[in-house]
Amino acid sequence: MNIIKTVQQLKAYVQEEKRLGRQIGLVPTMGFLHEGHLSLAKRAREENETVIMSIFVNPLQFGPNEDFEQYPRDLERDAKLAASAGVDCIFAPSVEEMYPEPPMIKMTVTDRTDKLCGEKRPGHFDGVVTVVSKLFHLTEADQAYFGLKDAQQFAVIEGLVKSLNFPVKLVGVETVREEDGLAKSSRNIYLTVEERQKAPHLQRGLQAGVQVAEQGEKDPYRVQEAAREYLLAYSGADLDYVELLSYPELKELERVEGRMILAAAVKYSKARLIDNIIFSVNEGK
Amino acid sequence: MNIIKTVQQLKAYVQEEKRLGRQIGLVPTMGFLHEGHLSLAKRAREENETVIMSIFVNPLQFGPNEDFEQYPRDLERDAKLAASAGVDCIFAPSVEEMYPEPPMIKMTVTDRTDKLCGEKRPGHFDGVVTVVSKLFHLTEADQAYFGLKDAQQFAVIEGLVKSLNFPVKLVGVETVREEDGLAKSSRNIYLTVEERQKAPHLQRGLQAGVQVAEQGEKDPYRVQEAAREYLLAYSGADLDYVELLSYPELKELERVEGRMILAAAVKYSKARLIDNIIFSVNEGK
Repeated sequence: MNIIKTVQQLKAYVQEEKRLGRQIGLVPTMGFLHEGHLSLAKRAREENETVIMSIFVNPLQFGPNEDFEQYPRDLERDAKLAASAGVDCIFAPSVEEMYPEPPMIKMTVTDRTDKLCGEKRPGHFDGVVTVVSKLFHLTEADQAYFGLKDAQQFAVIEGLVKSLNFPVKLVGVETVREEDGLAKSSRNIYLTVEERQKAPHLQRGLQAGVQVAEQGEKDPYRVQEAAREYLLAYSGADLDYVELLSYPELKELERVEGRMILAAAVKYSKARLIDNIIFSVNEGK
Repeated sequence: MNIIKTVQQLKAYVQEEKRLGRQIGLVPTMGFLHEGHLSLAKRAREENETVIMSIFVNPLQFGPNEDFEQYPRDLERDAKLAASAGVDCIFAPSVEEMYPEPPMIKMTVTDRTDKLCGEKRPGHFDGVVTVVSKLFHLTEADQAYFGLKDAQQFAVIEGLVKSLNFPVKLVGVETVREEDGLAKSSRNIYLTVEERQKAPHLQRGLQAGVQVAEQGEKDPYRVQEAAREYLLAYSGADLDYVELLSYPELKELERVEGRMILAAAVKYSKARLIDNIIFSVNEGK
């Protein structure tokens, strides 16, 4: 497996892969890999001749009070895991390599950011689309893999690709879960033993809401409330939000129909967890 | 020659050209072609296996008081001219095809726009980089051709490509001139006979400034003033601006050195003309 740290080397690598007619799959990450990332890499491995994983903690997507400096980094460990998942090339540039000067183009996401987590992270998705645009261009990826746990990020990137006609196919990969249903996350280690036992209720609460929709409820508020009540009763966490929205548009719904997301964020003593279910209901019911 | 009007057809065309391993050259235009555009197309023809010319009057780059509706359009005439210059494919989409919904990503150019013509056209270059990004993605161009008469536009697009790492090589093509040195422009027909006789002095005034720099003058103001005095004396026009700046950064200079642009805009009774010279001086002198 190649580990490339400069733009120039990456361009040479990509040019050669393209010359050989190879399809390129990109897995963009901020490193400190867990099974979620590896499931993206494995999926990319199945569907592409060349798999590039980027590992870059992007300062542009961190707010002034967020943990850019403290964000965990361990390239050596990541490289072993990536190799085991079949990655051909890691692109791990420095900040100076990615932003030798401040970008002359400011990208602002004007939709899909005022709900869910976006509301509390102004500018976050602007930083995301900037770095993702750069990575799409640098790798000339045919397909790019993102986790659906970050469903809002996926919706924003879907909008980016559509708005600017990027020649890349996006693949949203299902959330990887523990056996009891808790979504895998680096933050799960911050849960107390008791919180860890209750945390799977986050997903179950969302399932409770979806079930109400599947039983024919057409009022979005009632679907949302079914999930909220379950979470209040069983999760043992403070609720940050529980929202039912259209997907990927992330608009409030008049009626339960079409493709939707039911998403929640909850706060335990030392960890904030998010989860979601993207679903449609059968109109025939 | 193909004339393609939809994004879907263009994608199919590009995919086939790529599959055949052909290098693609893009000539972005707003149509109503003149010899300037055709020189871009001919250059692209020499350097690429496939030449795509886009013809699209981009509403995003027109200000509220500018002439978007009145901008001349004649696809039939353009198609004949493009074919004669060796273009393989014209991409002439409708506004609805390019912007089926408002773009979810707002692109703002944060540098190189506060001088020359940019100063008076707020938002113009934001619209330019948005449509150019879309065209680069849609055509997957290996090389893209722009006229150096619009030197500021070229500088902004150079910044776009560098900031976001677009995998495209930009080619700036020398301004096409009449025999007496006047830069070709659709607007030259608005000149009176007397103005037409004096208009070549626009280029000569710029040459007068450059000559002063080449003779060893290190004060940017004096170079600029040499051009200004010539233009005041001989052009018979009102001066809008005469500026000597670094190129492509478009910064004011402390000293006459490096790569520079000497640019001017002048106003005749019914036409505003622009011209420029991009040059370097030999430091040894």
